[in-house]
Amino acid sequence: MGAAVTAAARLSLNQRTIPSWSVPEIVDKCAAAGIGAVGLWREPVAEHGLAETAKLVRDAGIRVSTLCRGGFLTAAEPDARTTALDDNRRAIDEAATLGTSELALVVGGLPAGSRDLAGARQRLAEAIAVLAPEAAAAGVRLDLEALHPMFCADRSVLTTLDEALDLAADHPPAAVGVIVDAYHVWWDPGLDAAISRASGRIGSFQVSDWVLPLPADVLLGRGLMGDGSIDLRAMGRAVDAAGYRGDIEVEIFNGTLWAADPDELLTAIVDRFAAHVIDRS
Amino acid sequence: MGAAVTAAARLSLNQRTIPSWSVPEIVDKCAAAGIGAVGLWREPVAEHGLAETAKLVRDAGIRVSTLCRGGFLTAAEPDARTTALDDNRRAIDEAATLGTSELALVVGGLPAGSRDLAGARQRLAEAIAVLAPEAAAAGVRLDLEALHPMFCADRSVLTTLDEALDLAADHPPAAVGVIVDAYHVWWDPGLDAAISRASGRIGSFQVSDWVLPLPADVLLGRGLMGDGSIDLRAMGRAVDAAGYRGDIEVEIFNGTLWAADPDELLTAIVDRFAAHVIDRS
Repeated sequence: MGAAVTAAARLSLNQRTIPSWSVPEIVDKCAAAGIGAVGLWREPVAEHGLAETAKLVRDAGIRVSTLCRGGFLTAAEPDARTTALDDNRRAIDEAATLGTSELALVVGGLPAGSRDLAGARQRLAEAIAVLAPEAAAAGVRLDLEALHPMFCADRSVLTTLDEALDLAADHPPAAVGVIVDAYHVWWDPGLDAAISRASGRIGSFQVSDWVLPLPADVLLGRGLMGDGSIDLRAMGRAVDAAGYRGDIEVEIFNGTLWAADPDELLTAIVDRFAAHVIDRS
Repeated sequence: MGAAVTAAARLSLNQRTIPSWSVPEIVDKCAAAGIGAVGLWREPVAEHGLAETAKLVRDAGIRVSTLCRGGFLTAAEPDARTTALDDNRRAIDEAATLGTSELALVVGGLPAGSRDLAGARQRLAEAIAVLAPEAAAAGVRLDLEALHPMFCADRSVLTTLDEALDLAADHPPAAVGVIVDAYHVWWDPGLDAAISRASGRIGSFQVSDWVLPLPADVLLGRGLMGDGSIDLRAMGRAVDAAGYRGDIEVEIFNGTLWAADPDELLTAIVDRFAAHVIDRS
């Protein structure tokens, strides 16, 4: 096997990287490319059917590296909190059904009009305390994802890996983990120490690249590995040194790439993964 | 005097907040509005003349809170490093001539094509070590500004106040300080502790607001105080508790506001400053 094919065994394709593919398509394409896992999203899974998706990946011999996503647990109003908790309980069940232990959480930003970051962080901690034992009982881990600080107001009051680890520390590693997403944390001067500290808690390592200029919608600004500023190989070594042996998920939201030919994009992803993420040895 | 006028005595208007005004115009307008200080930029100062500007502010009884800016000290090539150091030496002289002790530094991002953040940070530290004694000898402090992590690749490898303080710690507080810019650091879970740690090092406290959506050019995304997510009053209390008694600089880069009537904008700034930054008591 060539280097790219060997590396691909550790690659997980996050479904939103090529959103034009249906669940059966992404499973077929990954299996054909020697890609070992997929990161699935709840909406397309629901569209295809939860049980059907679970059977499909099982039959194809493909792992589900993560289910995206739970979270949005910072609301202040009791009704909104109850709704959010119930939605996360459904996500836990879905992850268990799909055979993945890793449920990615985008924790939520400030409620509309609020400036109370500390309060939002406190409500998040309380919600995690409610959900963690339920997740663990289902064999699912809640993976706290620190998002880039540019998403602090609207998507995630967790902005650093250390902050995610501080919150996770109150719970067993099998109940609450963290996601190391290169795009979100690459700038952090304390990153190496935080990754080392994350040993035993890493639920996923996600890769893409930081490219400039940022687009009008900064959600869609991620680049293909190798096109930007992130030393993914160094980060991969740090994650490896922390003992993580799981799938490495390629998660790229990019309007330009989404408009490209998906088969060509998949080939480029596999090549770039071998060239910029995984050591070839 | 009303609350707004009282508060204005501690307000400094950063020149780029209303870039359509010339140096004489901004000095006149601030004096008329009871604003105690201005944050000047080197380019318009050079345009008006350095000595002329120094005389103008002195005669008007207006303080120069900061000179913007030095920095861009992360280049790897020897020639580029020499050029950058010389430019910073000129900026130190200009600050001294203008009668301000505070020179704001935007430290620089990754060199083009580089992924070596640690190397860029190391070169920055070396450049600060060269410049710090020269600045101190001129009665000027190099104020390290942590920029929002979304500017890490292209403008500032310093992304947190703690990181700026770590670098400053190698030098006397009169030689190397830090800037607390609300827009850049508001998301930081360690912010309160970092501000407390910054006691004696704070060269400027700068305010604006975090508003969504971010514009196409994220440099121009700052909002008027009170329009966004930042609890400026709480941050002001923290800065106050750290012993900072200097000017509070309003620095808003915003294309929409720049197109508005500048006199109306100044009135709004003074009102918002009193309502959202300074306690009225």
